[in-house]
Amino acid sequence: MKTIITIAREYGSGGHAIGEQLAKELGVPYYDKQLIELAAKETGLNADFVENIEQRKTTSLLYNLYFSAQSLPLSDQVFVAQSNIIKQKAEEGACVITGRCADYVLRNNPHCLHVFIYAPLDDRIARARMQYGANAKDMRAYVLKQDKNRAAYYNHFTTGSWGDAHNYDVSINSKLGETVVMQCIKELVLAKEASR
Amino acid sequence: MKTIITIAREYGSGGHAIGEQLAKELGVPYYDKQLIELAAKETGLNADFVENIEQRKTTSLLYNLYFSAQSLPLSDQVFVAQSNIIKQKAEEGACVITGRCADYVLRNNPHCLHVFIYAPLDDRIARARMQYGANAKDMRAYVLKQDKNRAAYYNHFTTGSWGDAHNYDVSINSKLGETVVMQCIKELVLAKEASR
Repeated sequence: MKTIITIAREYGSGGHAIGEQLAKELGVPYYDKQLIELAAKETGLNADFVENIEQRKTTSLLYNLYFSAQSLPLSDQVFVAQSNIIKQKAEEGACVITGRCADYVLRNNPHCLHVFIYAPLDDRIARARMQYGANAKDMRAYVLKQDKNRAAYYNHFTTGSWGDAHNYDVSINSKLGETVVMQCIKELVLAKEASR
Repeated sequence: MKTIITIAREYGSGGHAIGEQLAKELGVPYYDKQLIELAAKETGLNADFVENIEQRKTTSLLYNLYFSAQSLPLSDQVFVAQSNIIKQKAEEGACVITGRCADYVLRNNPHCLHVFIYAPLDDRIARARMQYGANAKDMRAYVLKQDKNRAAYYNHFTTGSWGDAHNYDVSINSKLGETVVMQCIKELVLAKEASR
């Protein structure tokens, strides 16, 4: 097996769980936070700081002014380091990678299947509350804010638009059921492998 | 089998052929032009005229002024008639319907699987030339114009935005291969049927 599956996902769509389950089913490594930590080690940055980059992206004016003395903004340095890790992992063989603009980073890698997972807003609010334990006063606003952060991060670092189907091989609504979505991606991976 | 599969598709993506093949595989009826003709009969309009509604949509000012004396613009009357046919066919049982905003018309029907099929522009240009025999001077502009017509038609008659993944259960890139796409949709249909 050679296929690298990248998964971008709306907040609360269950994309993380689907990716993890898929990796297990296929018997390949799964990279998410682990990737951030590896990237942090690579650049010698504090892992907490790296995790906060995404949040800062939407209010990044002061932040960028602060770091503007450097040749490359710190967030860009982190992005480059993460991209290098993603490319390195893809070189090592089949795996599942969620987030971190992996579809864009690996856009020229012919062994990829790029997936976007989304869900109706009401389902995502319910999932955020029940499964993630999120507890904001206005859950609708909270969930939309997480999407906004992801979109801002993606749109800043890539030439594409987060969630636009054209970035991906398949975009799938997780209201179909997590297992169904996982199986669907698996079938596409197997078809891709068979067509070599 | 109860599932109604609606397929929206970019021009040149092979969505029509995929839908036709899928209907054959599932042993259910396939509705496309046939639907337009049925609708035309229903309203007593000339079929050629009905087919041209989509093209007129983008330059519809004069056209709408011309028909503005009527209680409902003629294009809207045709849309309503087509929508009624789509609903009627969906009532009759499982089928595959391409185009005609069927996903929107049947948005409250729980037995539907809504699909969007797209492909890279270069692939679509090649397909338009080779398979559809299209022969415009500027094929790129020609293909994009067809999409624009479809988007204008969809965006006029629905509250959604044509091609936005959120309208559909799955959006799939036909560069994965027509058979792969068809099989993928079929698996989703079978999963939906099994979950009843």
